[in-house]
Amino acid sequence: MSGAANSKQASRKPVERRVKVDLGERSYVIRIGSGSLARAGQPIVQATRAKKIVVVTEPGLGRRYAPTLMRSLREAGVTVSRIDVPPGDASKNLRQAGKLYDVLLDRGLDRGAALVALGGGMIGDLTGYIAATYLRGIPFVQVPTTLLSMVDASVGGKVAVNLKQGKNLVGAFHQPRLVWIDTETLRSLPMRERAAGMAELIKHAAIWDEKLFRRLERSVEQALALAPEALPAAIADSCRIKAAVVSQDEREQGVRMLLNFGHTLGHAVEKHYRYKRVLHGEAVAMGMVYAARRSEELALAPSGTADRLEALLLRAGLPTELPRFAREAYLSGLNVDKKKQDRRIRFVVLRRIGAAETRPLLPEEVYPARS
Amino acid sequence: MSGAANSKQASRKPVERRVKVDLGERSYVIRIGSGSLARAGQPIVQATRAKKIVVVTEPGLGRRYAPTLMRSLREAGVTVSRIDVPPGDASKNLRQAGKLYDVLLDRGLDRGAALVALGGGMIGDLTGYIAATYLRGIPFVQVPTTLLSMVDASVGGKVAVNLKQGKNLVGAFHQPRLVWIDTETLRSLPMRERAAGMAELIKHAAIWDEKLFRRLERSVEQALALAPEALPAAIADSCRIKAAVVSQDEREQGVRMLLNFGHTLGHAVEKHYRYKRVLHGEAVAMGMVYAARRSEELALAPSGTADRLEALLLRAGLPTELPRFAREAYLSGLNVDKKKQDRRIRFVVLRRIGAAETRPLLPEEVYPARS
Repeated sequence: MSGAANSKQASRKPVERRVKVDLGERSYVIRIGSGSLARAGQPIVQATRAKKIVVVTEPGLGRRYAPTLMRSLREAGVTVSRIDVPPGDASKNLRQAGKLYDVLLDRGLDRGAALVALGGGMIGDLTGYIAATYLRGIPFVQVPTTLLSMVDASVGGKVAVNLKQGKNLVGAFHQPRLVWIDTETLRSLPMRERAAGMAELIKHAAIWDEKLFRRLERSVEQALALAPEALPAAIADSCRIKAAVVSQDEREQGVRMLLNFGHTLGHAVEKHYRYKRVLHGEAVAMGMVYAARRSEELALAPSGTADRLEALLLRAGLPTELPRFAREAYLSGLNVDKKKQDRRIRFVVLRRIGAAETRPLLPEEVYPARS
Repeated sequence: MSGAANSKQASRKPVERRVKVDLGERSYVIRIGSGSLARAGQPIVQATRAKKIVVVTEPGLGRRYAPTLMRSLREAGVTVSRIDVPPGDASKNLRQAGKLYDVLLDRGLDRGAALVALGGGMIGDLTGYIAATYLRGIPFVQVPTTLLSMVDASVGGKVAVNLKQGKNLVGAFHQPRLVWIDTETLRSLPMRERAAGMAELIKHAAIWDEKLFRRLERSVEQALALAPEALPAAIADSCRIKAAVVSQDEREQGVRMLLNFGHTLGHAVEKHYRYKRVLHGEAVAMGMVYAARRSEELALAPSGTADRLEALLLRAGLPTELPRFAREAYLSGLNVDKKKQDRRIRFVVLRRIGAAETRPLLPEEVYPARS
């Protein structure tokens, strides 16, 4: 970037948002902009100190965004190559991981190399897992291209692959060196998936921050349309919430449980549909409204809380009613919940918009019989 | 353990040695005794807080030692089961890891479970790798049964599996919660392998601690015969040295490089033999004597240093002369060394018995042509 000639362009450049994720020596920064992909190279090289960088992506995303990113990386002085992984969660497994190790070795990558995950949650999880384990760990950077991964996978350091028995059963905690978010990469994301990502922002607001909730109430439509004055700020707030939760509690107990708001019933729905038909964010949206209503019924939240939550989710285009499965389907979904402790479920309830807590409840308390 | 009745037995019990490995919240203790396996259960359960424990071992070792260990674990109140892995380094791969994940899932192990590695380096590395990655990490305990793994794998937190392209290419840093060493488990270890392990103790002494070196000069034969008054103390000293090095430098740069003393040429020998014929400790013994002589030639160590080192290694029954490969074989072995930085090798030289440092040397300086 050279001075005078660029100053006009720079002045039009939307303000970049930064969120620091504070984890001691593993701290890193999330940088959120609109149209910022072409400027990612230098910061990525500085954060990783890598001499060689491999961009891991999917063919479609790769065609669309990798050239811009890779040009910027090359201009920053590193050797760059790309690996395309077949799209879809089916790629997130040990076999694919084995193939990636082979490619990295073929390309002679040593500990002076770094990986960049350009894509959604699957790409981030798989790339992060490879980075966590290749040569006992090399640096990696996330460049998320879905709204869900921007606010979810950016913070937490969870990386994993699936086994045939279930999702994310093999993994690690491996923090990225930098997360680079360009909201313009959401241009190609179908509106249904934008909405599913928005469910995550709404969840963060609901459990932690009424101010963000009000911000979304003012501008959820603009945010979904990727307005530069609306979306980056909302993403930054959302990441800040997750970062606050995770910093307090890196290894997933206590407050981190609050992030499971809406997940207990949501998981039951996803499981029943075998992770098809319904997107994760959609299932969580249904689960959140259910949990908010249950919170009111248990006299834990003031009445009107669930309605307010539901209204915002509906504006985002999200479903809010649980499918009418037999009660047994929900109860059996609850019983195998990974979050169980004895038979009780640590169910996340809302106390009001902006505050949540966990309650140990029996499955039949979470999902009572209705007359 | 109940009071009075056991007091006589307890008074005959050899003094247990303890070494604390100081790594902040990941700190743990190495406990070294003679005949202590039957007392391991309670400490393992306390260190892991596990409700279910799986002992991972090899069939031969499993038959010999697992019943004692598992009885002690059961008495401590946990559910215990065992997995046997085929012996030999060939088991340390992703395929075997995949099988182990399946078994753990079949047995319903959740994050309240822990693994115990009962065996040598292969078992420790593989089990540690599974523990590092299963459900994003569960606790594990090392019960090493070779002298090498007692002093090497006990400290450092390195866990890994091999790929077909090379050893330890996929792995993690995952610290055990406890290392339980019973030197009586070395009874079944062939003398040649005891000697190879002794090379590691001698290495630690040579680079760091002349006092241990003198201790070994006084009693190396007794230590190899597993004398309870000689071996546990020597192992404790050796672990303490490695712990000191690793605590300063958990992620393998700087002082940790000193642990590579003897490895540059040693690796070249192992590679040339394709990791057959010569044991790692034997190759390192040859490499150490070579490096000590080279240190003298470069006027870095006083003359006599190499002779003193060689004398001790010979008493332990170790080879000290490099095989007469063509010079090219050594040079090409050096060039692919993982420890290279540009073309220079960070070669570990001795300054005297008990002190070492690294020097950046060109391969032809490490291994000059002799007239």
